[in-house]
Amino acid sequence: MTTPLAAIIARDYGTPALVIDMDRVERNIARIQAVCDAAGVANRPHIKTHKSPLIAKMQIAGGAIGITCQKLGEAEIMADNGIDDILISYNLVGDEKMARLAALQAKAKITVAADNAFVVEGLKKAAAISGLPLDVVVECDTGRQRAGVETPAEAIELARLIDTSEGLSFAGFLLYPTETGWPAAQKFYDEALAGVRALGLEPRIVSTGGTPNLKNVGSLKGATEHRFGTYIYNDRMQVEAGSATWDDCALNVYSTVVSRAGPDRGILDAGSKTLTSDTGGLDGHGLILEHPEAKIARFAEEHGFLDLTRSNTRPKVGDVVRIVPNHVCVVVNMFDEIVMVRGEEVIGVLPVAARGRLK
Amino acid sequence: MTTPLAAIIARDYGTPALVIDMDRVERNIARIQAVCDAAGVANRPHIKTHKSPLIAKMQIAGGAIGITCQKLGEAEIMADNGIDDILISYNLVGDEKMARLAALQAKAKITVAADNAFVVEGLKKAAAISGLPLDVVVECDTGRQRAGVETPAEAIELARLIDTSEGLSFAGFLLYPTETGWPAAQKFYDEALAGVRALGLEPRIVSTGGTPNLKNVGSLKGATEHRFGTYIYNDRMQVEAGSATWDDCALNVYSTVVSRAGPDRGILDAGSKTLTSDTGGLDGHGLILEHPEAKIARFAEEHGFLDLTRSNTRPKVGDVVRIVPNHVCVVVNMFDEIVMVRGEEVIGVLPVAARGRLK
Repeated sequence: MTTPLAAIIARDYGTPALVIDMDRVERNIARIQAVCDAAGVANRPHIKTHKSPLIAKMQIAGGAIGITCQKLGEAEIMADNGIDDILISYNLVGDEKMARLAALQAKAKITVAADNAFVVEGLKKAAAISGLPLDVVVECDTGRQRAGVETPAEAIELARLIDTSEGLSFAGFLLYPTETGWPAAQKFYDEALAGVRALGLEPRIVSTGGTPNLKNVGSLKGATEHRFGTYIYNDRMQVEAGSATWDDCALNVYSTVVSRAGPDRGILDAGSKTLTSDTGGLDGHGLILEHPEAKIARFAEEHGFLDLTRSNTRPKVGDVVRIVPNHVCVVVNMFDEIVMVRGEEVIGVLPVAARGRLK
Repeated sequence: MTTPLAAIIARDYGTPALVIDMDRVERNIARIQAVCDAAGVANRPHIKTHKSPLIAKMQIAGGAIGITCQKLGEAEIMADNGIDDILISYNLVGDEKMARLAALQAKAKITVAADNAFVVEGLKKAAAISGLPLDVVVECDTGRQRAGVETPAEAIELARLIDTSEGLSFAGFLLYPTETGWPAAQKFYDEALAGVRALGLEPRIVSTGGTPNLKNVGSLKGATEHRFGTYIYNDRMQVEAGSATWDDCALNVYSTVVSRAGPDRGILDAGSKTLTSDTGGLDGHGLILEHPEAKIARFAEEHGFLDLTRSNTRPKVGDVVRIVPNHVCVVVNMFDEIVMVRGEEVIGVLPVAARGRLK
């Protein structure tokens, strides 16, 4: 079965194609802004999911105070398109990046993260080149063992180093608690806060993150803002995590069934170069709306292997199906553009302007 | 430890960066051409790995008879850059693709694959639009349960259908045997060959595939050509499969260590948006040449999680390391360009011209 809209998408854009429903996008923006407003924290969405200045501006028009980027290259695209308040939640390292960071400071208000003294030493160079003060937040590890200092004592020491570094200003703390880690994050933050206050410092930004933390937003006493990323489109992971419903999933991958060589199996024209091998910890690689019991079992680069064993309905060759991907952020990053629709009507094409900006 | 070349790459191009050694690329081209020559089969390399017309032309200059593409969009880029003999080893479906295929026929000699009657019916439209005859090979499943008819009887029937279809010409068979599946593929092919000969047809192309099939090339009696893809750069999977040595691995991902928050762990600036979540069935996500006992254990989108527990040498923040990825084909597809070097000298930048051409 191919819906009338899917037939139009296939005819005019070809498959595999990414399609977003702008009614749902706007609803997601309003819903999360309301969550932030109710929690009393500012909304600073993470653009890693959509990588689009147009969507970022919609988020800001909806009430966001600015945006979050993970990579400098993303921030450059956003600043070049008029976004003027950007948090880069990442350790930037190397002279090449410091020269670019300095140039970026001239275009927008930039805040960067650091979790070690080597990074802080580098950031001084950017401020020296630009001649502009640079706000730095201390990234704290609150359970993910990713980036972030491991102890409040280290956070305090790094805050002191930033404060005493020429051109740099201590701006606060960046946290990314796990869904169950908020009490521990509170304890970490309270100790770090007491320590920096003893030094005469006061955090202006205390940033928490994550769409799966929807239910926790505002529960860190002292938090000033939150970084929601995936909520803009949502995906199968967010539905599984309870932070979205299927109706909140704004993005579908439209894919054509190109082979049905056996009765219990088929091949989609969307493989690991389209849907990526990121399972998000789930079984199967996405939900097919037309055949929810079919399983996208595995991939070749341009082949999605359909296991139809448990599916009472079976697509035929030529059918165009709609897939809710497991992890939407990495799928968006595979495409240069996304088709925008409202309901059943195509309204335009959205460039994924910061796609592949991984430097 | 950062090598002098890595310091230059980081300074001039930033990290993460893809770097290929053109001496090794040229050696790989010569080595595989020699394998094909010795086996008495023509070399039709699969460009899905490099997605570069420049590299494709080097392969042809080295003796290849043409190229293989997986997607129409890849073939369009290649034809627009002067490659004139292209096999698209994929079921093309839909009117949008048929119009593009017809336009492509005017630019290059095109052969396409089909494994079902619906695809054949569509291909007739392309030939009707272009007014040019279209060569079609029958894709046969020889053990992978991907695309391909499951039985010789189906292959014969599809050959007959192609031969009697206006504008189409039966060109032969496309096979992709598993490493251990060549005797079964021989049996399949022999039966299909006898069947089509009984219809008065003769295959001009009998194509086998896969770099891991290096040792099997030429062992299918009747094979006319082979599709080598990954060999151009090689990767950790090919080394594990015994079809390449570490010295044959021409591509490295250069990545900076940006965090060392704990003694036994670190963070690379290469995450799932750089190295992809495709493990290739291996443990860990790549070999770090400077720290072969370190494990790239898992990813966030822009973070590579280094497990240093078993590594006696440990990188410090700011070090630029070189990674041999598990599966090079999907990594190349994340980058718009690759830095070319010879030994320790940078010689230029290679556009990944067909990156993201997934339609």
